[in-house]
Amino acid sequence: MRVELVTVGDELLLGDTVNGNAAWLGRRLAEAGVEVTRSVVVGDLLAEIVEAVTAALGRADAVIVTGGLGPTYDDLTRDALAAAAGVPLVLDKDLERRLRDRVAAAGRTLVPMALRMAEVPEGARVLPNPVGSAPGLRVKLPGGVAYALPGVPREMRAIMTGTVLPELRAAISGTPAVRRILRTAGVWESELADRLAPVEALEGVRLAYLPDPAEVRVRITATGPDAEALAGRAERMARELLGPAVYGEDADTLDRVVHRLLAERSATVATAESLTGGLLGAELTAMPGSSATYAGGVVAYATRLKHELLGVPRELLDAEGAVHPDVAAAMAAGVRDRLGATYGLAVTGVAGPEPQDGRPVGTVYIAVAGPGCDPRVTAPDLPVPSDAAAARAPVRRMTVVHALDLLRRTLLGVAGETGRDDLPAHREERG
Amino acid sequence: MRVELVTVGDELLLGDTVNGNAAWLGRRLAEAGVEVTRSVVVGDLLAEIVEAVTAALGRADAVIVTGGLGPTYDDLTRDALAAAAGVPLVLDKDLERRLRDRVAAAGRTLVPMALRMAEVPEGARVLPNPVGSAPGLRVKLPGGVAYALPGVPREMRAIMTGTVLPELRAAISGTPAVRRILRTAGVWESELADRLAPVEALEGVRLAYLPDPAEVRVRITATGPDAEALAGRAERMARELLGPAVYGEDADTLDRVVHRLLAERSATVATAESLTGGLLGAELTAMPGSSATYAGGVVAYATRLKHELLGVPRELLDAEGAVHPDVAAAMAAGVRDRLGATYGLAVTGVAGPEPQDGRPVGTVYIAVAGPGCDPRVTAPDLPVPSDAAAARAPVRRMTVVHALDLLRRTLLGVAGETGRDDLPAHREERG
Repeated sequence: MRVELVTVGDELLLGDTVNGNAAWLGRRLAEAGVEVTRSVVVGDLLAEIVEAVTAALGRADAVIVTGGLGPTYDDLTRDALAAAAGVPLVLDKDLERRLRDRVAAAGRTLVPMALRMAEVPEGARVLPNPVGSAPGLRVKLPGGVAYALPGVPREMRAIMTGTVLPELRAAISGTPAVRRILRTAGVWESELADRLAPVEALEGVRLAYLPDPAEVRVRITATGPDAEALAGRAERMARELLGPAVYGEDADTLDRVVHRLLAERSATVATAESLTGGLLGAELTAMPGSSATYAGGVVAYATRLKHELLGVPRELLDAEGAVHPDVAAAMAAGVRDRLGATYGLAVTGVAGPEPQDGRPVGTVYIAVAGPGCDPRVTAPDLPVPSDAAAARAPVRRMTVVHALDLLRRTLLGVAGETGRDDLPAHREERG
Repeated sequence: MRVELVTVGDELLLGDTVNGNAAWLGRRLAEAGVEVTRSVVVGDLLAEIVEAVTAALGRADAVIVTGGLGPTYDDLTRDALAAAAGVPLVLDKDLERRLRDRVAAAGRTLVPMALRMAEVPEGARVLPNPVGSAPGLRVKLPGGVAYALPGVPREMRAIMTGTVLPELRAAISGTPAVRRILRTAGVWESELADRLAPVEALEGVRLAYLPDPAEVRVRITATGPDAEALAGRAERMARELLGPAVYGEDADTLDRVVHRLLAERSATVATAESLTGGLLGAELTAMPGSSATYAGGVVAYATRLKHELLGVPRELLDAEGAVHPDVAAAMAAGVRDRLGATYGLAVTGVAGPEPQDGRPVGTVYIAVAGPGCDPRVTAPDLPVPSDAAAARAPVRRMTVVHALDLLRRTLLGVAGETGRDDLPAHREERG
């Protein structure tokens, strides 16, 4: 099955928006065994959309159109699909009622323009949008099927996952390739590839590495008549070779895994942050139910607050500055103690673009304090962009991932793998 | 002058890479007054590239192809351009010599495959690559001109800036369209469109709305002989109609604007967060230099910590729960006081998916405490997705934007516009 993508929006041609939707769609469709053969961006012009959709269906079995389903007059995808199908737009009473209910629930009145979102090409099927106002549409056209989805990523994803992907999967015949994804943290891509050479050597198995800052997803693709069994074998080998570097499967995220490990132990964590400014707490509270395992946190951005709010000794800060393994250890112990959590997790470091207290950009110390032992401190080796001005966001992001991974490894009782791990916390030396 | 983009590479169709090159090109070309009318991604297949380039030149004056110029056998752009031009590939002696010099300087020997990078379609002009091995190419084709550039962003940008953009600028006759972007916060897209109807009615002016959660960018495009003056007039009208809803221009972000306003007043802010878990602090520390205006924050996720860390009265929490305007006000006052900042900014609310303390998902109270007056509290109307499970991320994101906007409006001394703004803080009623 061949699918083409048509993305609608002047903002994409003008470069005001990066086409993240196309990348997300390409990835999900590839995972489902559907081949994306072309991806086209057109502006908010009726004739352009009609031409692009029609041309796409001259080559492929289906086309997925994103964007142009909103309420304003530059939202023309509905009109284009109606024109391509040679049918009029009609008002869908159900959609109209749901729109009015939504707006009323927010205590507002419907502006007439918003009613455009209740219009559909005659004969089209409405694809429910669980997270927004503009529904998706499925329209039969001469050359194949067109799916139209809103351009808002969250809404597009919800309709894809809920309706379109299951439909496409059901339409595929034959044995598709089997794909597995393993999520890893704390090990560099080249190191992973080196360790996984024996898996790569298996006949019918391909590996791909999808890196995010400080995390790498390893995609295993198995093909052939016995793809399912082969994928299972490759996955088992990979898990054995990588050990605790694997933190989960595709649907897992590091914060979810940490939450689960804490919940299993009836434990909680509190965070003390400096360079990340709250990102670590935000990550630990991203998932529903996080209040069971996350107590709270302190963002001690100004150095004096590390003493005032977390009890880091003033003389330590005066002697060593804010970026030091012992400061991280004291922050972790302090936040654990003051917030009454089972674990304290702390980060301090230099996000850039300027060095701080004589330490270069990318210097980061992470500490975890738990029951019954001294804090454990690591200094991850972060690959810092050579352009210091571009370092800030990735350094902050990598720090969060390494901090979550340190807590995960501590909860599992396993060692770290990269960087100068497990620095001794020299608290006793300072009395 | 109309230009189309063709991006070559399987990795883009599979979604392993986001098409950042197309966005960068779109922006630079628009700035130069060149209209990008379509952008197409094709895989590493000769026939696909030939077809896409030929079709593009059937519609536009020029096509810019990126990717597929490297040394390996899946790099097919050179072959495709030769095929489209109906000419053979020939070895360019100059390029060959420079390749050999480059490789020798790195202390290596040239692998035969690398010589592919010295081949060019007969008659093509070589565009120097100051930062890499693969040169760009300019090829005259029946329908217009094709520029081919490497897919490596740094190399693509260097050749565009050095050669292609100056050439295109010189080729433009007439007056280009003029674009302005205004950034707004706190007003819904449909409401903005309603207020801006008089601007939309101006001859030669087009408006587009680019929404993010709780923020909307308004793009004004003016065309015609007097485009510059028309754009200026449209912008002035829009600013008048929207008032303080406009927080900046294209390059501004809300956190930068808040930072600037605080810095101008030699003021600092401290944050107290609940449902956002640290996102607000993270946003306020995203930019370099934020330590001048951001002191720190407290994430009082567990309800008891709102009392212990921020001094919210225990009886208030017992009587009203954690989600209440007075709790937000007490959090703001508490964090301002305890962290010694000029302003305290606090958020409490229900991110979902479950209601909390009897309040529905999306209930949010935001408070700012400043010098010399009672805290100001707002309850923004958030458009909550009907699917509560999908509400969490957008509710948190919208809360951050509304909080930054409340601080911005407070610093400017202007009122809010949406939601039940400026709730009285009933602290005195409780003694």
